[in-house]
Amino acid sequence: MKAVVRRGPTLVQADIADPKPAAGQVLVKTLACGICGSDLHALHHLEHMIETGKRSGADSAIDLAGDLVMGHEFCAEVLDYGPGSSRPFKVGARVVSTPYAFGPDGAELIGFSTRFNGGFAERMVLAEPLLLEVPNGLPTEHAALVEPLSVGVHAVARADLTAQSVALVIGCGPIGLAVIIALKARGVGPIIAADFSPARRALAEKLGADFVIDPATTSPHAHWSALDVPATLGEFSTASLSGRSMRDAVIFECVGVPGMLQSLIENVPPTAHIIVVGACMEEDRILPVIAINKQLKFSFVFAYSPDEFRQTLADMSEGRFDASPLLTGSVGLSGVADAFSALRDPEAHVKILVRPDLA
Amino acid sequence: MKAVVRRGPTLVQADIADPKPAAGQVLVKTLACGICGSDLHALHHLEHMIETGKRSGADSAIDLAGDLVMGHEFCAEVLDYGPGSSRPFKVGARVVSTPYAFGPDGAELIGFSTRFNGGFAERMVLAEPLLLEVPNGLPTEHAALVEPLSVGVHAVARADLTAQSVALVIGCGPIGLAVIIALKARGVGPIIAADFSPARRALAEKLGADFVIDPATTSPHAHWSALDVPATLGEFSTASLSGRSMRDAVIFECVGVPGMLQSLIENVPPTAHIIVVGACMEEDRILPVIAINKQLKFSFVFAYSPDEFRQTLADMSEGRFDASPLLTGSVGLSGVADAFSALRDPEAHVKILVRPDLA
Repeated sequence: MKAVVRRGPTLVQADIADPKPAAGQVLVKTLACGICGSDLHALHHLEHMIETGKRSGADSAIDLAGDLVMGHEFCAEVLDYGPGSSRPFKVGARVVSTPYAFGPDGAELIGFSTRFNGGFAERMVLAEPLLLEVPNGLPTEHAALVEPLSVGVHAVARADLTAQSVALVIGCGPIGLAVIIALKARGVGPIIAADFSPARRALAEKLGADFVIDPATTSPHAHWSALDVPATLGEFSTASLSGRSMRDAVIFECVGVPGMLQSLIENVPPTAHIIVVGACMEEDRILPVIAINKQLKFSFVFAYSPDEFRQTLADMSEGRFDASPLLTGSVGLSGVADAFSALRDPEAHVKILVRPDLA
Repeated sequence: MKAVVRRGPTLVQADIADPKPAAGQVLVKTLACGICGSDLHALHHLEHMIETGKRSGADSAIDLAGDLVMGHEFCAEVLDYGPGSSRPFKVGARVVSTPYAFGPDGAELIGFSTRFNGGFAERMVLAEPLLLEVPNGLPTEHAALVEPLSVGVHAVARADLTAQSVALVIGCGPIGLAVIIALKARGVGPIIAADFSPARRALAEKLGADFVIDPATTSPHAHWSALDVPATLGEFSTASLSGRSMRDAVIFECVGVPGMLQSLIENVPPTAHIIVVGACMEEDRILPVIAINKQLKFSFVFAYSPDEFRQTLADMSEGRFDASPLLTGSVGLSGVADAFSALRDPEAHVKILVRPDLA
């Protein structure tokens, strides 16, 4: 079958062996599969990703000598089942799945495994117990967004938001925008969004951000006092000693570059909760005593739970989430390498889907 | 009156002007005042403390050219009131207070202010609205421990503990031991405690730690799997995909030296909650991506709320907390400088009280 493989730090089109479903597995045809920021990173820094994964206690399912087929944000169509299956979905049914497959060594991440190819290929095998059928009303392109949207839903779920919370989203790439969609659907407000890119700020506003900030001209932290969040330790102590209840700040860090954490430590309001969604892959430096003085809380988050994924599919199907503004392009397998380059320009694209049916 | 003043990086005995209570203030006689780790730090690194305080958004109430009288863990006796007072406590009543005073620029921290002297002096002025009377049954020496115990109570309150939580306390100085006392009083268990010092490990065990670890010979993280906490990402994924509920890890970092945070990031179980109580005053380096992969949560905590302080006084008075094992010595004002040195040896001391009535 046709696929796009990572061979060293380049993407090439190749014919690879068709996957065969074993017991508990399902053969599917890839309908659409989004390109994720982690795919862009893995193209050039796969060894480093594997090393940090191992230091995190994760076994890698990647053989660096082999071809890697990425793609973990997919919507697919059921073609066939492995031996012994009760065949729970009709052939032709559209499905999504959390990107896990079960190999001889346990769970492996589809799209970051050299044993189970990801969605930048015509076909895949998925784990039957994880499949969810896409309801009729939901377009395939939207169903492919369930995975990245679930990341935003999970980040928001970990934020312990209250009716008093004011949210600041730093970085309006696909994940920052997914966070805004999830915040808006939960009725959290006001939402402040910050990004250097005019196109992404416009999208943040369209998706429901109440204040949109260009960090080149205005501090993302300029609005706290006006929104009744105590912005300094002095304001915080005065409010707390007088028993006055004020609003609390929740910051979603969706950038993931060195220096962001210390910039937040120095600039967020006291007692702020920082949800770290952007994965900074490099060593970073912080001054812990300032975080102590301000009693900051950091929740580092990753992916989502199976329940959050299932609920996100339901929320999209039933119209509670409209993620379609994130879609900025579709390419066939021959266009994947160019799409990886195009995604580096925030003015041009947010989410590009790979559709193997296109030329 | 007699006092011990910090003059440059040395402690000297000096006669200083008697404080006079203004409206809203109370003149008290210092009965006992504990020496805190932050006092030891301030002796040599006061400028740095002020600088990090300012970067945290706190105004400093310290004039570096002036004498500083430290001491913020006190029990005192009411001597007189400022003008216009309704005199809520009898002269002679024993009181404690959160260490705040209200000056012309707002709240100032007693013991870290050159306007309001701390407890290493015969007398102080305190803020009348913050005074709490010490119940008859509670010895003065124990009442002086309300402040450091409140720090442990606050750290435990911020940990969001459940019946499934397993606690690890790293560092068994006064604050680590206060955390153990607070955990034990809340019925949290098992409690693992780690410290290089045999004397402090013995004290941790006496105060209720269930496992006591010498990090020189055993990893503080050796027990997780045996206590049903998933110790690796693999164990965590397997449990989570199978729907098996396991216990969660809560780590209290009570050391505060560079390198501790990254060591925890690499070694704690996935989804662990790390309560950072030890104040690392220097720049520290971390690898955020590992914290993301493991979905770690960090709560940086400082001090306590007025309610936690009040409740700690009640818990000590009514026998729910016994903090007396922390007391290892008492000195008069003439012994304060030597006590600061003696406290650097963890085998010799935990908490030394300054009692101005002693020679």
